[in-house]
Amino acid sequence: MELAKQFRTMINKMQAYEYVFSLLGWDSNTEAPRESHKRRAEIMGVLSQELFALQTAKEYQDVVNQLYSEIDTLDDQLQREVKKAKKALDKVINIPMNEYVEYMQLGQLSQLVWEDAKQNNDYESFKGNLKQLIEFNKKFALYYAPEKDPYDTMLDDFEEGMTSKEYDAFFGQLKDELVPFVREVLKHPNHKYDSFINDSFDSKKQEQFCDYLIDVIQFDRNRGLMKKSVHPFTWNTSPEDVRFTTRYLENYVFSSIFAAIHELGHATYEQQISTEWDNTLLHGGTSMGIHESQSRFYENTIGRSLEFWKANLGKFKEIFPEQSKGIELEDMYQAVNRVEASLVRVEADELTYPMHIMLRYEIERMLMSGEASVDELPELWNDKMEEYLGIRPETDSDGVLQDVHWSGGMFGYFPTYALGSAYSAQIYYAMLKDLDLPKLIENNQLEKVNEWLKEKIHNFGSSKTPKELLLEVTGEEFNAKYYIKYLKEKYSELYL
Amino acid sequence: MELAKQFRTMINKMQAYEYVFSLLGWDSNTEAPRESHKRRAEIMGVLSQELFALQTAKEYQDVVNQLYSEIDTLDDQLQREVKKAKKALDKVINIPMNEYVEYMQLGQLSQLVWEDAKQNNDYESFKGNLKQLIEFNKKFALYYAPEKDPYDTMLDDFEEGMTSKEYDAFFGQLKDELVPFVREVLKHPNHKYDSFINDSFDSKKQEQFCDYLIDVIQFDRNRGLMKKSVHPFTWNTSPEDVRFTTRYLENYVFSSIFAAIHELGHATYEQQISTEWDNTLLHGGTSMGIHESQSRFYENTIGRSLEFWKANLGKFKEIFPEQSKGIELEDMYQAVNRVEASLVRVEADELTYPMHIMLRYEIERMLMSGEASVDELPELWNDKMEEYLGIRPETDSDGVLQDVHWSGGMFGYFPTYALGSAYSAQIYYAMLKDLDLPKLIENNQLEKVNEWLKEKIHNFGSSKTPKELLLEVTGEEFNAKYYIKYLKEKYSELYL
Repeated sequence: MELAKQFRTMINKMQAYEYVFSLLGWDSNTEAPRESHKRRAEIMGVLSQELFALQTAKEYQDVVNQLYSEIDTLDDQLQREVKKAKKALDKVINIPMNEYVEYMQLGQLSQLVWEDAKQNNDYESFKGNLKQLIEFNKKFALYYAPEKDPYDTMLDDFEEGMTSKEYDAFFGQLKDELVPFVREVLKHPNHKYDSFINDSFDSKKQEQFCDYLIDVIQFDRNRGLMKKSVHPFTWNTSPEDVRFTTRYLENYVFSSIFAAIHELGHATYEQQISTEWDNTLLHGGTSMGIHESQSRFYENTIGRSLEFWKANLGKFKEIFPEQSKGIELEDMYQAVNRVEASLVRVEADELTYPMHIMLRYEIERMLMSGEASVDELPELWNDKMEEYLGIRPETDSDGVLQDVHWSGGMFGYFPTYALGSAYSAQIYYAMLKDLDLPKLIENNQLEKVNEWLKEKIHNFGSSKTPKELLLEVTGEEFNAKYYIKYLKEKYSELYL
Repeated sequence: MELAKQFRTMINKMQAYEYVFSLLGWDSNTEAPRESHKRRAEIMGVLSQELFALQTAKEYQDVVNQLYSEIDTLDDQLQREVKKAKKALDKVINIPMNEYVEYMQLGQLSQLVWEDAKQNNDYESFKGNLKQLIEFNKKFALYYAPEKDPYDTMLDDFEEGMTSKEYDAFFGQLKDELVPFVREVLKHPNHKYDSFINDSFDSKKQEQFCDYLIDVIQFDRNRGLMKKSVHPFTWNTSPEDVRFTTRYLENYVFSSIFAAIHELGHATYEQQISTEWDNTLLHGGTSMGIHESQSRFYENTIGRSLEFWKANLGKFKEIFPEQSKGIELEDMYQAVNRVEASLVRVEADELTYPMHIMLRYEIERMLMSGEASVDELPELWNDKMEEYLGIRPETDSDGVLQDVHWSGGMFGYFPTYALGSAYSAQIYYAMLKDLDLPKLIENNQLEKVNEWLKEKIHNFGSSKTPKELLLEVTGEEFNAKYYIKYLKEKYSELYL
């Protein structure tokens, strides 16, 4: 098939540029010297023009549209690729060029404005940018799908097939069943281990423990590596090159440990994808939500379990003999599961975390429907924090300005964080039917867990949608009850 | 000027690709996981095709040829750029495409064949590739300049303006004046410090000392960084992003130290180039020889001086108290300047180093003129080693197979190593007229030395040729007598 071959060649060329942008990002986030940004920006300017020209070229449009017109005649894989390509194409080409350029410039500028605003606790200086970002995103969503609620288009961008109707149901359930439970738990604060948790832990030794965790999770060092960066992240260009970072805070050792396990979850997913999807549009994990389900599963279900510390407290004590003096298994289990109402999402514990997301989802929904304006945002934010967690930010830097997402025009991203955690619980209960998970964790036999996830999820790359995967793995559609059950069981036992 | 603008746009686009190849190389040489090579090779395949298409595009040829035809009307900077562009273009477009492709494949293959041959001490398996590489290079040189000795074309590729006539004179002088001196010094071997030199030094501590050297040399950390790799090298994409590596051998601490100072020489050169040459063909250091003059100057003239260790032995002893027990200033000076006949170029000391290069130059010359064939090469090599250094390799791995250069088709590269060292001595004596160098080194005031080099050499990037620079800096043309004088003075005092 000549057309399919042309399609493949074009896709591969674009992927080469994407690889390059990826590498530029990895370099700049992990080691590039401070003053290197100017030259890099020039290079990225030249290369983005090249890539944009490829993505919107008449020849490429013709190939995609032609294939799309005869989609029923294509094999399943190519069908899925062409649908993805068509969707991406339609999103871009319906935007007038001048608006596209204006939006790109706004996006770059807004990041800087947000950084300053956060640093100076000055929401007013960012408000105008935020308003423009919202308007552009609504407008672009309507160009693509005039008949659809723009927020639904955005939600689908980050998690294929999800709509506000479904998220409303999900967060509604959390609000009814989880909020009262969280408030109950918060009445029993546990500060017994505060001085241990915030003791001073040498960075080099933290690195040594995180390096040990690579082998515990059985991540393949020949196809990946660990480094450090300000914000932990996972990076991959193929299953044969998957890298992740963690960060070292001397007075909060759990930050590096759980960031490492979290990213190892993402990274294991990417390493276990079949290489057959390389050079296709079905490479990489299938969605934000499924990705997050894997990172949360490794971080929380495995990493914060009693069995995990049964297996690994010994090593921890060997590396940190002073700080861990008198810390026994049960102490460690309680310490890593300390629950407290906190202002900042990225520092939130497993139980209060979904509250932070629910708040963001509700606010995005109101902003997109016009029910709330950017003027009311700080108050709205603070009121909801008070409602769900009983605390009120004293500054906008610790409130509405804390996250980078909106300044980059990412609306509809946040809900995938909670969705991923909920997916993770549903997958966990399905796994329990096949595996004696506690035993495997306790014996550091995670190769069995990896294998199960590979066979059921990882292997497929993006060749299945999140909904298809979840149905196949768990035998039913998404159901938040598993998440609520998991959290209630675990934290009732720990706190009530 | 419309034409000049087109030229600039085209150059900038090509430079973006060169930046990318550079970054891919940096990544792959310093950290990329072992199994990442397959995906990277695919990406490089796609991008090299893109770059080659740009470099040979009809529109680009037209612009360069048009500008070249009116070169006298252009300003000095543009004249120099157009000459460079024209030369590079003519080198490529005169080669028939099929031969070019064949040569590229041969080059890639030969590297692997050489690696195996070196590992297995099997010159016979590499001989055929070497022969083909020589023939291709001669042929290509003749396509470009049919009237010129092909070896002269190659020499000019690595050091603009240098010819075999000039190198003959240079190496002839070394042969007459230096070989007898070296043989005399070698009669007084110094093994007093062998056990100190080859004592065990922890890698992490070596790294700490090398990190300290960054500040001694006053390399700007905001515009660069140090990392490690198997073979030390310097990497740069602009004066604002200059990186270098060193390597850590636990039983040879001088390896990391002098590799670091050597690369800091290259790196300081690149950092001190004016940013006005960014986005032009005059960016970066002007030639291999001038670059090597800077690295050798920092490594040997500064780093192996008595004054340098007067300033820095204290720090060394602080980091390595055990190993340096009883080592006083004079001991250290003698240890870092130990001279011995050795088989391997990259491990050679300052005095015997040029002998290794002389041998390679003479052999390249014979191979290119047809005076010697690849069949005779191992014998020829070993005979010359015996003649100049009085030792004979027992294996070809330690002889003719030791260096990577020829397997990559690089003929004419080696002589720039010795030339650079000789430039360095000539520049050194010029510097002594302006600066009290020993005092500055002793006081760790290298900012004054950097400043002098910046003003006289670094600043100009490639906007001056090596010959122009040398004449302006030292007031005379290249003269090997300074090099001979420098070596004789230093090593007479140490050894005779």
